[in-house]
Amino acid sequence: MGDNMPVGEIIWPTMHKIAGLKLGTANARIKNSERDDVVVMQLSENATIAGVFTQNAFCAEPVKICRHHLDQARAELILINSGNANACTGADGWNAAMACCEALAKLRGCEKENVLPFSTGVIGEVLPYEKICAVLSQAIDDLQEDNWRKAARAIMTTDTVAKGASEVCEYKDKIAHVTGIAKGSGMIKPDMATMLAYIATDAVVEESILEIICKRAADASFNRITIDGDTSTNDAAILIATGENQSFVVDRIDSKAYEVLEQTIIKVFKQLAQLIVRDGEGASKFIEVQVEGGANKYECLDVAYEIAHSPLVKTAAFASDANWGRIVMAIGKAPVEELDSKSVKVWINDVQIVENGGRARSYTEEAGSAEMAKSEFCIRVNLGRGNYSESIWTSDLSHEYIKINAEYRS
Amino acid sequence: MGDNMPVGEIIWPTMHKIAGLKLGTANARIKNSERDDVVVMQLSENATIAGVFTQNAFCAEPVKICRHHLDQARAELILINSGNANACTGADGWNAAMACCEALAKLRGCEKENVLPFSTGVIGEVLPYEKICAVLSQAIDDLQEDNWRKAARAIMTTDTVAKGASEVCEYKDKIAHVTGIAKGSGMIKPDMATMLAYIATDAVVEESILEIICKRAADASFNRITIDGDTSTNDAAILIATGENQSFVVDRIDSKAYEVLEQTIIKVFKQLAQLIVRDGEGASKFIEVQVEGGANKYECLDVAYEIAHSPLVKTAAFASDANWGRIVMAIGKAPVEELDSKSVKVWINDVQIVENGGRARSYTEEAGSAEMAKSEFCIRVNLGRGNYSESIWTSDLSHEYIKINAEYRS
Repeated sequence: MGDNMPVGEIIWPTMHKIAGLKLGTANARIKNSERDDVVVMQLSENATIAGVFTQNAFCAEPVKICRHHLDQARAELILINSGNANACTGADGWNAAMACCEALAKLRGCEKENVLPFSTGVIGEVLPYEKICAVLSQAIDDLQEDNWRKAARAIMTTDTVAKGASEVCEYKDKIAHVTGIAKGSGMIKPDMATMLAYIATDAVVEESILEIICKRAADASFNRITIDGDTSTNDAAILIATGENQSFVVDRIDSKAYEVLEQTIIKVFKQLAQLIVRDGEGASKFIEVQVEGGANKYECLDVAYEIAHSPLVKTAAFASDANWGRIVMAIGKAPVEELDSKSVKVWINDVQIVENGGRARSYTEEAGSAEMAKSEFCIRVNLGRGNYSESIWTSDLSHEYIKINAEYRS
Repeated sequence: MGDNMPVGEIIWPTMHKIAGLKLGTANARIKNSERDDVVVMQLSENATIAGVFTQNAFCAEPVKICRHHLDQARAELILINSGNANACTGADGWNAAMACCEALAKLRGCEKENVLPFSTGVIGEVLPYEKICAVLSQAIDDLQEDNWRKAARAIMTTDTVAKGASEVCEYKDKIAHVTGIAKGSGMIKPDMATMLAYIATDAVVEESILEIICKRAADASFNRITIDGDTSTNDAAILIATGENQSFVVDRIDSKAYEVLEQTIIKVFKQLAQLIVRDGEGASKFIEVQVEGGANKYECLDVAYEIAHSPLVKTAAFASDANWGRIVMAIGKAPVEELDSKSVKVWINDVQIVENGGRARSYTEEAGSAEMAKSEFCIRVNLGRGNYSESIWTSDLSHEYIKINAEYRS
């Protein structure tokens, strides 16, 4: 527990290649690590792209450039580095990121506006762009459709495992593939926090439709996870449709093909999001917080986040202590108008712990602790006010979290 | 650091007696501790009283009874126990608290409505009222005006030091005294969290005026501190004016006497609130977060709380790491409309760390770390939007916090 290992056994899945998307990596030694820290992705000519980005007012320079370039030109290349976030670096940071875009564009014979830059790592230091530019040709030489795992490794920072997910969907004998990678292990919470995710499908999807799918999928996944309530300056989730699979076409939002593809994309987004929680900094437990019986979606989420953000609930989870008093305390402070504590019910997995504003009659501490001792469990709350329900995923708060975050940078 | 000791040297102050208020303690062995765990306070006949209570929807049974009794009758007696919060205990909890009120009322020849009950400690277990009733006569025999320190000790839970403050104010040769005690060391945040505070003055103050002062003083003190963002089911701050000092009369809110007394009461409230932060669970640093240049009070507080609640900022403080990137990340995620990151400035004490959306030109890591290494420092932010400013107080997040909260109850 809390020994800096992900929760549960994480097996690298079979990653379906996505025709029209090649990946290459290289080691620019940004932090003098032996691990590759630069990724180049090359998109097919027909590709469409959509993205969701951090809402942080101090968003990083590469994020600003990404948005700018997405508005100006077709995305042909994606350039990612780990080890340095190039955030809060002002004009110097902007120029450094732009220098990388220019260097890559020159090597590939396109304009800098066709390159989308991404950075993750320490905040406040200008990107050492010469180091990156020096290895770009090496990354280009490495471009292949089956380099997903290498790319997943190269974007890691405090992550302890590479994160990938891949699914296939069928519609009328036609098959589309969805494959993605992500990084992130701390500072995770709604509104996209220190995480990067790149998900691609070979289907043909109109860009306006891809934007809708990307937003919905992020809302159902990356915007439903939280480790410590902190958000980052650099987050982004990017969805690409290469359009190389001309048999699987999504050109209408009310089509069956749309529905099938969207569900598959959401599935991949969710798998990646949950991998980030499992690899949460110092996490020893994977916890689903499910709030049902709400009068609307928002109060379900408010209650779920109060529970998931409470350091007292999180330390109790770390200690496998079924301290239901801390859970009701967290529920009680959510901004829900006229919540009747007597209508609230709480379960840990199938063990009911709270009813009528207090401990459930059937509850025994042994039964509760046995559930909390599992490495994965669900805290389920029924507010008794309506029919809405929402789920989010989080982790516990361990000694290891303090250790990692007190020592990062040193 | 982080060794379960309060931050800074805490010296028990000279506590001015408050004529008309006597305190007595006893040991009911609620948690089988050697320390007294029951306090009785007896108020003079002329006393007026005001209180602010937890906003938690799962407020404890004694809190409900307190509010009820305050509406119904004059407060003559206050009964406090530590070791058991009697929260989320439903009808059994209500009856147990009421049994204590009845027993004390009977011993003093008044009605149960003249007794205000308070409890602090573990949530979810019904108060062992027989244990408390058995020692009430002992606490009554102990009633004295100079028992403030004994009372401060008896209300402690995870507190490591007894908390008291006392001040004198003068107006036209007339003197009033203000003395108070408090407990609380975790689950502290706005809206009154696991803390109890009892402050008294010997001045004559009309009850409606006392209520205004109590609300203002709590807003300037207990509602400006945060340890872990959690709130409790039992919090209360009680302000008593015994009225025994007939020379110091406050009967108008626009009077000089009002102003002088209110400032002194706020001073005592603030001292007690800051003692709670200094004794924060596992705290090794005492941090003031001051946000100025806001367009209104609310955005100053929003930004201040984002900083104070960020586990990443708090672990950086624990590690004496001037990680200004984490501070700007926290500022950036505050819900402030159209915050221009380039206008934001940040200082640690007098060392400027951020300007123009990035690291300040004059900044050196040595200078920043030297300030963060102090056991007390101020994070000052200027938003560059207006003339409002607000301060709150918080602590760092240490290994010890996890230890205390993972092990409490065992």
